[in-house]
Amino acid sequence: MTEPWKLTATEASKLLRKGDLTVEEYAKSLLSRIEVRDPIIKAWAYLDRDFILDQARTLDSVPESDRGPLHGIPIGIKDVILTKDMPTHYNSRIYASHPIMSVDAAPVITLRAAGALIFGKTATTEFAATMEGGPCGNAHDPARTPGGSSSGSAAAVGDFQVPISLGTQTFGSVIRPAGFNGIYGLKVTWGAISREGLAQYSMTTDTLGFFTRSVADLELLSQVFQLADDAPVPSSPFSLEGAKIAFCKTPVWAKAGPGTIAAYARSQDILKSKGALVSELELPKEFERLPEWHGKILAGEGRTSFLGNYLLAKDKMATSFAAMVENKTQLSRKAQLEAYDGCARCRWIWDEIAEEYDVIITPSTVDEAPLGLSSTGDASFNAIWTILQGPVLNVPGFKGENGMPVGLTLVTARYRDLHLLHVGKAVGAVFTAEGGYKHKLL
Amino acid sequence: MTEPWKLTATEASKLLRKGDLTVEEYAKSLLSRIEVRDPIIKAWAYLDRDFILDQARTLDSVPESDRGPLHGIPIGIKDVILTKDMPTHYNSRIYASHPIMSVDAAPVITLRAAGALIFGKTATTEFAATMEGGPCGNAHDPARTPGGSSSGSAAAVGDFQVPISLGTQTFGSVIRPAGFNGIYGLKVTWGAISREGLAQYSMTTDTLGFFTRSVADLELLSQVFQLADDAPVPSSPFSLEGAKIAFCKTPVWAKAGPGTIAAYARSQDILKSKGALVSELELPKEFERLPEWHGKILAGEGRTSFLGNYLLAKDKMATSFAAMVENKTQLSRKAQLEAYDGCARCRWIWDEIAEEYDVIITPSTVDEAPLGLSSTGDASFNAIWTILQGPVLNVPGFKGENGMPVGLTLVTARYRDLHLLHVGKAVGAVFTAEGGYKHKLL
Repeated sequence: MTEPWKLTATEASKLLRKGDLTVEEYAKSLLSRIEVRDPIIKAWAYLDRDFILDQARTLDSVPESDRGPLHGIPIGIKDVILTKDMPTHYNSRIYASHPIMSVDAAPVITLRAAGALIFGKTATTEFAATMEGGPCGNAHDPARTPGGSSSGSAAAVGDFQVPISLGTQTFGSVIRPAGFNGIYGLKVTWGAISREGLAQYSMTTDTLGFFTRSVADLELLSQVFQLADDAPVPSSPFSLEGAKIAFCKTPVWAKAGPGTIAAYARSQDILKSKGALVSELELPKEFERLPEWHGKILAGEGRTSFLGNYLLAKDKMATSFAAMVENKTQLSRKAQLEAYDGCARCRWIWDEIAEEYDVIITPSTVDEAPLGLSSTGDASFNAIWTILQGPVLNVPGFKGENGMPVGLTLVTARYRDLHLLHVGKAVGAVFTAEGGYKHKLL
Repeated sequence: MTEPWKLTATEASKLLRKGDLTVEEYAKSLLSRIEVRDPIIKAWAYLDRDFILDQARTLDSVPESDRGPLHGIPIGIKDVILTKDMPTHYNSRIYASHPIMSVDAAPVITLRAAGALIFGKTATTEFAATMEGGPCGNAHDPARTPGGSSSGSAAAVGDFQVPISLGTQTFGSVIRPAGFNGIYGLKVTWGAISREGLAQYSMTTDTLGFFTRSVADLELLSQVFQLADDAPVPSSPFSLEGAKIAFCKTPVWAKAGPGTIAAYARSQDILKSKGALVSELELPKEFERLPEWHGKILAGEGRTSFLGNYLLAKDKMATSFAAMVENKTQLSRKAQLEAYDGCARCRWIWDEIAEEYDVIITPSTVDEAPLGLSSTGDASFNAIWTILQGPVLNVPGFKGENGMPVGLTLVTARYRDLHLLHVGKAVGAVFTAEGGYKHKLL
């Protein structure tokens, strides 16, 4: 048998159901991987081996008839998401020794109800709201950033330490680390999953996301969280033959580095070779303002979100939070409201554009993960899709000049999350097979 | 000296600052009022006399130079808002014996940092998301509903048990109980105050609100929460002479009962007698869909928000939550998105309309509080202002056919919260003086 830590959730689930693997064995296998790799990758903010094994044994004792769809599946939780039995520290000096908060965030309640094994808390940037990285490193080169702010969640899945983890995205905090770590990352449609119990930065953009190493695992999660499109998704695989696929450089294309430029070109060749109808999509003029509007909305909402902790202990916070609370940029309410209303207009324009294509493909990151851990890297390519509030999927498969993974982003209209996964599965299969990146372990 | 429990926060604050009142004395006075009245009104979900007095003595020991703007002011917290030292039960059977969650909601952090005395948790409807009332009664007649879902918060302030309390509004949960209990209620602009640590029902509408017995207390809170309009608010009182005031019947005017109809007419006479330029405002045709869109947004977002607890223990939840999660109304994503986009369009149209007037006045409730505690009453007049996301203020002063209080709603454009309070202070003064309602205690 393959070592269990190498399995995706879907693969492990099959063995668990058949009785060929116990939750305890699975957990022990992942813990053995973590024991070797954590000193190098540092993906975990909190991990209690004994507690994990206790929980695993409890799950093993659940009668088969009572087992949920995620029975025994270990899941890492970004350390800005409340867990009733583990501390939540937000990578904040204010909360560094705060007691356990004794409440589960809504998505954690859902995961537990589905039988998941909540494994530990993963490293993040301060309140998931700075670009300051460390100590967590990239799964494929610990000297490079894993991206942020869902740093540990992406690194842990990329490094086979857990099959699934939760992240959040306000700017590019799911898609960028997924791209940098060569894994799938899904930011769901805004509102499709409850945000109760997640740290708040921006009410307009903060959204839950998942990291996995397969689209099948994302489909499993989409069932657990009851994601639902209007149109039923066909049970047969999506066919790339004749598929209408648009490529979109976005207004920030000038930032793209060689790895991203190559992936963008290579992916078009691959899709054309499968019979897809590939075209280039230019966004309407008004969309050029989206990055600026995204920034203004974050500034205006951060001003509110960080007030409490600012009053409590501003000396223990990143200065960028104090700057937001103090409105150092002198953002006016008028500008903030113009940003809200401008983005709202773009949302329905975007949905109409997106409906014309099976999927739209666009860069995930400016390039492969850069060297160094001090910054979590550039999220420029993510802002407009986050503020448009539709589902966003990172698909891995390509590599940069230094052999690090490079992914591409698939987007579509709001509340077409299942459709995006359906297409993403077919696209992911060919990108992974022909994109040029191979994980050392596979 | 007046008994301290009769004071507004601003009045008590003056005495506390001068050393004419200690926090402990103030708390004891309120507790004595509560001791007499709580068996009748039942406003509190949690109240620990000894803990309150401990906290009060701790506040008394704070050196004068370290005292905050809310030093020693007792504040009731709706029991869907997390408090690190008191349980949060959401009036839910699922959380009836849940341990203390050891974390403060962001607004509670802000209040504590300002020196407030967090007094206890106030009665609410289940997850602040049903119309099912009880056991809390109205401050002016315990056989009548206090409104909901911020039932206890409004009743406690209306009954002089605390000077200030926190509520939340998704439909009409601040304005309706404020109206029914004859007090001020302010729902701030969506996004103006952090929602972290509040129960989540609808991400588009859930908003924090305050209950007080004076506009000066709301102004004090607006400073603590750093509410900020673009235009500075004049330091001189707002003059009703020549003020442009529009009255708006809204598309649900047909629901107005005699108390509300009389208040609507009487208030126009009062304002005209002060020299205000009063006109009738008809909303654009498209606004007729706002109540329907509000309902669809709540249904679509409730489907997400209640999933976790539904999976955890659906047998311990109101059936209305299960109906949302199961999407019993077969709401489509298309309809939900149309509601989002339609409301977004109305928001900027509304802001333009509102800028033409100093303030717009509209009903708060269909009538005075009805008899019985089983239902928290009709919130029809509140939905459109909640979904438009601007600030909303209930101003008391009128009475219904049975002598119960009736209030009116003042609204304006988004992020003009301070302006609304400035106008509301002048309007409140004349409504209270000439509207015909007198509190038994005053």
